[in-house]
Amino acid sequence: MKTLGTLGEREAIRIIDGIVSSKADVGIGDDCAAIDIGDRYLLVTTDMMAAKTHVPKGMNPYDIGWTLVAVNLSDIAAMGGRPIGLVTAIGITRGHPMDFLEQLVDGMNDCAQRFGTSIVGGDTKEHEALTLCGTAIGEVPKNEILLRKGAKPGDLVVVSGELGMAGAGFYSMKRNLGLNEAEGVLKRPWPRLAEAKLLASSGSVTSCMDISDGLSSSIFELTRNSGLTYEIDYSRIPKAKEVEMAFHDLERQKSLVLNFGDDYELLFTARREAEGELERMAIEADCPFTVIGKVTSGEENILIDDGKREKLENLGYEHFRSRQS
Amino acid sequence: MKTLGTLGEREAIRIIDGIVSSKADVGIGDDCAAIDIGDRYLLVTTDMMAAKTHVPKGMNPYDIGWTLVAVNLSDIAAMGGRPIGLVTAIGITRGHPMDFLEQLVDGMNDCAQRFGTSIVGGDTKEHEALTLCGTAIGEVPKNEILLRKGAKPGDLVVVSGELGMAGAGFYSMKRNLGLNEAEGVLKRPWPRLAEAKLLASSGSVTSCMDISDGLSSSIFELTRNSGLTYEIDYSRIPKAKEVEMAFHDLERQKSLVLNFGDDYELLFTARREAEGELERMAIEADCPFTVIGKVTSGEENILIDDGKREKLENLGYEHFRSRQS
Repeated sequence: MKTLGTLGEREAIRIIDGIVSSKADVGIGDDCAAIDIGDRYLLVTTDMMAAKTHVPKGMNPYDIGWTLVAVNLSDIAAMGGRPIGLVTAIGITRGHPMDFLEQLVDGMNDCAQRFGTSIVGGDTKEHEALTLCGTAIGEVPKNEILLRKGAKPGDLVVVSGELGMAGAGFYSMKRNLGLNEAEGVLKRPWPRLAEAKLLASSGSVTSCMDISDGLSSSIFELTRNSGLTYEIDYSRIPKAKEVEMAFHDLERQKSLVLNFGDDYELLFTARREAEGELERMAIEADCPFTVIGKVTSGEENILIDDGKREKLENLGYEHFRSRQS
Repeated sequence: MKTLGTLGEREAIRIIDGIVSSKADVGIGDDCAAIDIGDRYLLVTTDMMAAKTHVPKGMNPYDIGWTLVAVNLSDIAAMGGRPIGLVTAIGITRGHPMDFLEQLVDGMNDCAQRFGTSIVGGDTKEHEALTLCGTAIGEVPKNEILLRKGAKPGDLVVVSGELGMAGAGFYSMKRNLGLNEAEGVLKRPWPRLAEAKLLASSGSVTSCMDISDGLSSSIFELTRNSGLTYEIDYSRIPKAKEVEMAFHDLERQKSLVLNFGDDYELLFTARREAEGELERMAIEADCPFTVIGKVTSGEENILIDDGKREKLENLGYEHFRSRQS
């Protein structure tokens, strides 16, 4: 019998995609769905979190609430959008103290407020274990929408911020390394809304997504959507200094940077001639935008490491199968 | 320690409402949130279902998928809206067969298509037990929005369709009574979208909600929102004929009609002078709209039964506490 465990998340999504007949202009497979509402697109994204399997130990209820909202806002950012509201469904046990619920909702509310939006509604249900589902609604001018497809060979591949920070935070919490800033990034993800808005309005960005499941996995998602390939130069990837504090071993560092995820940085492509503009926008946004490679039309995705060209492996997090990193 | 089990769902929602600062024009406590998007309101509603606790035994995956979409569309109907898309998050175990997922998504897709909308996106995650979360987006002209508040003393209290059908279906499945039509209503709820649209555009309806948790509970929800009271004449409530096939006992029949829920009929108030118009609209919609009482400004909600006036008890389904019916 073919189960989800044997087939994996990507196959499940392929099957769902084959059944569902979406009337949206941008459907399943991008960070958000986009619905034409006349003068602009409405963006919708949803994300389910089970506390037991998706929440690292050491996160308090406030962190969990913040994260639920942040990961959904990150999807709105990935499309170049502005959030206009969120709804959150909370499945919680009878035994949870009311304090826990209060702190959870505080975290949700604070994150939404911090990014200029609000929780407009929700659902609270009794559940066997803490399970949360957030849905964010956003809007974007039609000519500014950023999709996972749209790049052309020769375009620059760019990331915002630094990678590996959340992964270093994860191992810091697990092994009491005291990397507080990294732990903070893991516990309170920061959606790149303002940065993405700036990029979207520049007209220089040709495709975009957020890195939730790791860089390697995200590159393969771009490939799936664009039909193109990507060549990444490992030495150019901006790595959080905490990565080498978490691991001495270079291979483990590399795995953290390429495969861990949870950084919620933007991965995007930009026209080749936009390098100067990227620098200008990085200053305006007060956020590094680093060119880490280029778009190609080859056979496979390539990682250049220490001068050697190797095939980039898709080792990011896939649900229903075991974590690789 | 105050837990959700000791305080109950309504208290939990009151606490959440106190924390969350919604920027929406209609916030927490109505069937949907309403966000002003210029020329109209955007409606958003979300609903979480845990298969183990919220899904009656005997429902197949197709029914579960249909229901998830239908209950969210019913909330859009309750506000007088038109759906423009849904997102569905699926938490499912590794051990679930791929067939199960296919049928589940088939049910979701068919229900959305049947009511003129579509699944535009979603999330699929590994989970310990089947958990679903649906979010529907709709729109409504500003002058047509139906809220839980808005009634005036003297207005008519009206329900669509018949009550007790889903409850009879529940007991039929539990005790193999073979009440197929009632079981069908329970397994495949029918959101009253077309009916509500007609009511909303008439201008005669002063408040509205859908009956998901039972009539008595819904009356108390109207009171909470409007500050008014309601007087219901039990003899005038349109009861499904299956109710007396499920129970001979009159008290159990009464409990089914008043407290069971899952009928997803509309409960609304209309101007006193609209009785004739209601009849005309019932014919146009091919759906009974039955006056069952009136809006009052008394001390408590009243049930008139067999000539006797008694206090209407709020015995509908409340999460975190045990089922009353």
